[in-house]
Amino acid sequence: MDLISRVISRDTRALARALTLAENGDVALLDELDTRLPGGAQPARIGITGPPGSGKSTLTSAMVKVLRAQGRRVGVVAVDPSSPFSGGALLGDRLRMAEHTLDADVFVRSMASRGRFGGLAISAEDACDLMALAAYDPVIVETVGVGQSEVDIAKLADTTVVVLTPAAGDSVQALKAGIMEIADVVAINKADQVGAERLEEDVREGMELRPHGSWQPPIVRTTATEGKGAAELLEAIAVHRKHLETSGGLEQIRRARLDARLLDLAAAGVVQALQDSAAFRHARAAVAEGRQSPRQAIRALTAKLKL
Amino acid sequence: MDLISRVISRDTRALARALTLAENGDVALLDELDTRLPGGAQPARIGITGPPGSGKSTLTSAMVKVLRAQGRRVGVVAVDPSSPFSGGALLGDRLRMAEHTLDADVFVRSMASRGRFGGLAISAEDACDLMALAAYDPVIVETVGVGQSEVDIAKLADTTVVVLTPAAGDSVQALKAGIMEIADVVAINKADQVGAERLEEDVREGMELRPHGSWQPPIVRTTATEGKGAAELLEAIAVHRKHLETSGGLEQIRRARLDARLLDLAAAGVVQALQDSAAFRHARAAVAEGRQSPRQAIRALTAKLKL
Repeated sequence: MDLISRVISRDTRALARALTLAENGDVALLDELDTRLPGGAQPARIGITGPPGSGKSTLTSAMVKVLRAQGRRVGVVAVDPSSPFSGGALLGDRLRMAEHTLDADVFVRSMASRGRFGGLAISAEDACDLMALAAYDPVIVETVGVGQSEVDIAKLADTTVVVLTPAAGDSVQALKAGIMEIADVVAINKADQVGAERLEEDVREGMELRPHGSWQPPIVRTTATEGKGAAELLEAIAVHRKHLETSGGLEQIRRARLDARLLDLAAAGVVQALQDSAAFRHARAAVAEGRQSPRQAIRALTAKLKL
Repeated sequence: MDLISRVISRDTRALARALTLAENGDVALLDELDTRLPGGAQPARIGITGPPGSGKSTLTSAMVKVLRAQGRRVGVVAVDPSSPFSGGALLGDRLRMAEHTLDADVFVRSMASRGRFGGLAISAEDACDLMALAAYDPVIVETVGVGQSEVDIAKLADTTVVVLTPAAGDSVQALKAGIMEIADVVAINKADQVGAERLEEDVREGMELRPHGSWQPPIVRTTATEGKGAAELLEAIAVHRKHLETSGGLEQIRRARLDARLLDLAAAGVVQALQDSAAFRHARAAVAEGRQSPRQAIRALTAKLKL
């Protein structure tokens, strides 16, 4: 049986192997994956993001527990921003997810960024697709909201949950607009701590910046370490998804996602093709010899592309 | 007098205006900038990176003070990772730099990320070039080491200083290899705090992972809030630069930087050209109608490119 068939038959070792091949850009596997992907229903994708230390992984773990009690198979893609400074946090995250390691119906995959040209977004999307083939539904994509590329990953999800904590509340005031832009649901985690009330007010105020008549993100208080609020959070996510389905928004964000994916793939493909091309060698020589500026050389190069 | 000429004549308002135009991709200005850039000596570029809260901005401010006492004009490019969660930190950073705001020989520019395709790296490089034209030397590029793209920015510098603090020391053990990869000089900031000794040992141990005979990053202890160690840090940076000049490494990293810049510009250019192209519309339609997978469509598209 080929690898993708084994993935579809829920062989977790095959899935792990396929994920590695996909991350390494194995063309044969990725083609096979593309061919076998069902055109119709896709599993729900839930994005979880927020500042470091907001308890995203603990919250994810608590959600997994609730979903397992409902008999769901859950996939988790945990994205490491792959800065040399962030590894410690991730190590902690892995430990927090460890309670599910013996459960074959929970599959956790950590991913690190690679390359400069949308490589992480491409890989994360492939990982979601592979998990979908293996009948994991929902797939949770967890990212630390630390950089632009990490926030971009949040856009892989149908529903994006932003996790905030009272401790970080002081800085929320200034950031509301940015956060509100990506949040479909807001989780106020560590809700037993001082300042939760105030934070919720701040967030609610921030909502008012959203266009009238658009989706108003519900706010859910959670205490992830005790599992509190995880069920309510999943409920809020389900309501948002229902809203997407009935409003036509799901179609819309999937189209936008497909466009972004096509551009990512195109950029990665073109850059790869460029690197070994005569045209790029010429451009590099022209710049090195002072005949053209970098911008002139690249403009000359792109002008010659027949698109 | 045209804008670039005013920049060269050290008109700071012209510089501010030029930086904004450059960030917005103004073609006329960028062409003019490229034309006027001197081919020969370039100002020293110092990269400062490290985890959030390590005191990068305070340390930068302390270094600026020392450099000013030496009569140097100093440019600072402070890169905001532009996550919606990071704005608060940056606001604090700006305040810490405020003591230099009345000094015309210190120019601080904050930049936010834009777009997915190397846009931030392109803009940061343009900002460095504009500051070079205005005779700022050195130019300090400060980034929070939180994501891949932010770490990439560190590569714009000739010398990269990694700032660590005892408080974060517990996680350093696991991260040494990654940090050692980008550090030319290590600053142990908040060196008056418990754990500085231990951290220095850890970092020194990490050095042993570097290839034998390669540059061994000096470790400098600093207490940025009191300005302690800033002069020694600049000394260590100067030694590294001297090493680069005599070993031929400076030529090498500048060539590598130029290659990276050309690829960034090419990717940005190609993606922009793609977005409005018939070829991309065809690819999108083929995928939307289920005739091709995203990868097949993009492969067909790139195969047709004449490079």
